[in-house]
Amino acid sequence: MEKERLILVTNDDGIEAKGLKSLIRVAKMFGRVIVAAPAEPQSGMSHAITVKIPLRALKMEENHSVDVYSCQGTPVDCVKLALNQFTDKKPDLLLSGINHGANSSTSVIYSGTMAAALEGLINGIPSIGISLLNIDPEADFSAAEEMAKRVIEKVLNEGIPENICLNVNIPDVSLNKIKGIKLCRQNKGFWKEEFDKRTDPGGKNYYWLTGEFFNSEPGIEGTDEWALKNNYVSIVPTKIDLTCYNSLDTLKDWKI
Amino acid sequence: MEKERLILVTNDDGIEAKGLKSLIRVAKMFGRVIVAAPAEPQSGMSHAITVKIPLRALKMEENHSVDVYSCQGTPVDCVKLALNQFTDKKPDLLLSGINHGANSSTSVIYSGTMAAALEGLINGIPSIGISLLNIDPEADFSAAEEMAKRVIEKVLNEGIPENICLNVNIPDVSLNKIKGIKLCRQNKGFWKEEFDKRTDPGGKNYYWLTGEFFNSEPGIEGTDEWALKNNYVSIVPTKIDLTCYNSLDTLKDWKI
Repeated sequence: MEKERLILVTNDDGIEAKGLKSLIRVAKMFGRVIVAAPAEPQSGMSHAITVKIPLRALKMEENHSVDVYSCQGTPVDCVKLALNQFTDKKPDLLLSGINHGANSSTSVIYSGTMAAALEGLINGIPSIGISLLNIDPEADFSAAEEMAKRVIEKVLNEGIPENICLNVNIPDVSLNKIKGIKLCRQNKGFWKEEFDKRTDPGGKNYYWLTGEFFNSEPGIEGTDEWALKNNYVSIVPTKIDLTCYNSLDTLKDWKI
Repeated sequence: MEKERLILVTNDDGIEAKGLKSLIRVAKMFGRVIVAAPAEPQSGMSHAITVKIPLRALKMEENHSVDVYSCQGTPVDCVKLALNQFTDKKPDLLLSGINHGANSSTSVIYSGTMAAALEGLINGIPSIGISLLNIDPEADFSAAEEMAKRVIEKVLNEGIPENICLNVNIPDVSLNKIKGIKLCRQNKGFWKEEFDKRTDPGGKNYYWLTGEFFNSEPGIEGTDEWALKNNYVSIVPTKIDLTCYNSLDTLKDWKI
């Protein structure tokens, strides 16, 4: 008998998110599932870890197909807690999402969803972050579920290189409008901030972070933004090594 | 008359940190300084941004050489606030640190210090994150200040490629023991967690995150860990693009 697969599922929108429930449904098709997700939404938490206060975790559900833990802290805290406290067996796969909103282009840097996948990678687990381009809490995840299933099947059958995880973004259209899946590079872009400065009843200022994404290379085939704009699912093979090797060469004659 | 340089200084250990004061001292040698640093320590916050609550900022000092702002929120919040609210002029240089503790190898992923430098890079500012290999709040920063000065001089005179920022780590030894400066790649390694599980007076469990760094490729020349171990300052040219281009090639025949 085949040994049962163990799949760790997390996200950054929190334990109550609709996208998490979609991903749990898909994960159950492929093995036994442990869910360790943040008790509260943790969007924009990137790779943050909690070091100043201790964490708590609550087991919400335990049955033959799934254990569910609600964890204080960040998505990366959830992954660390799960691997260290909730299972003795190393998971065969880590799935993070399905995020409510895109994690394409430079957004990968700010993303809690992708940080959880990168944390899986650091721990030697094949890991996939999955996002739908719709931030609505009630977004329709049906096409995203189907595309997630296809990507997971591929990864489980063929594996992925051991130095990467996958950043999967799914356009917000019905399944029959999705044209296919493209392997892509991360698009260049940035968020332009326009803080909303307000004054409280006591006369003191406070600032709400708002921002708009600017694409620095619109319309360039091969980028994730291009693929998504053209109704393809984008997959960026994503790594932890931030070294710019070209610059190592450019700067090699630096003498300080 | 030469137009005066504007230098933005931040850190992740907070406005009161000794390493920040060292970096402000160095920065003042090169231009007018704006400091926007977290009101409280923000170690391990990575590239987190604050989206659920508004931010506040307090101007602590304003004179001919330096403006100092204490900001709620993360290091990246500080950079965004400074660029959007505290100056009309784009800074000529961003300095982050001097961090109390190493940000070499995989630690770059968790680092608030380096996230601030990466945020500067995203905004098109030459940016340098600087860390001393000593986590003591009272660490001796005198050698680190001198080495920071040399690196900053070099960057201001010669510039750096526009797609990178610099991750500078400085060994915790006296200046005469520092052998030089090496351009390096990011070492492979990971933090192995051993949560400290405790029980509160009410009988409920809580977990303190603890961990130990494991070097996956010890003794390999060319890595930042090797350089630091051999008393060199390490500089890793660090980029935002997480795409693994080799894998784009490996996986190019994937059909899903």
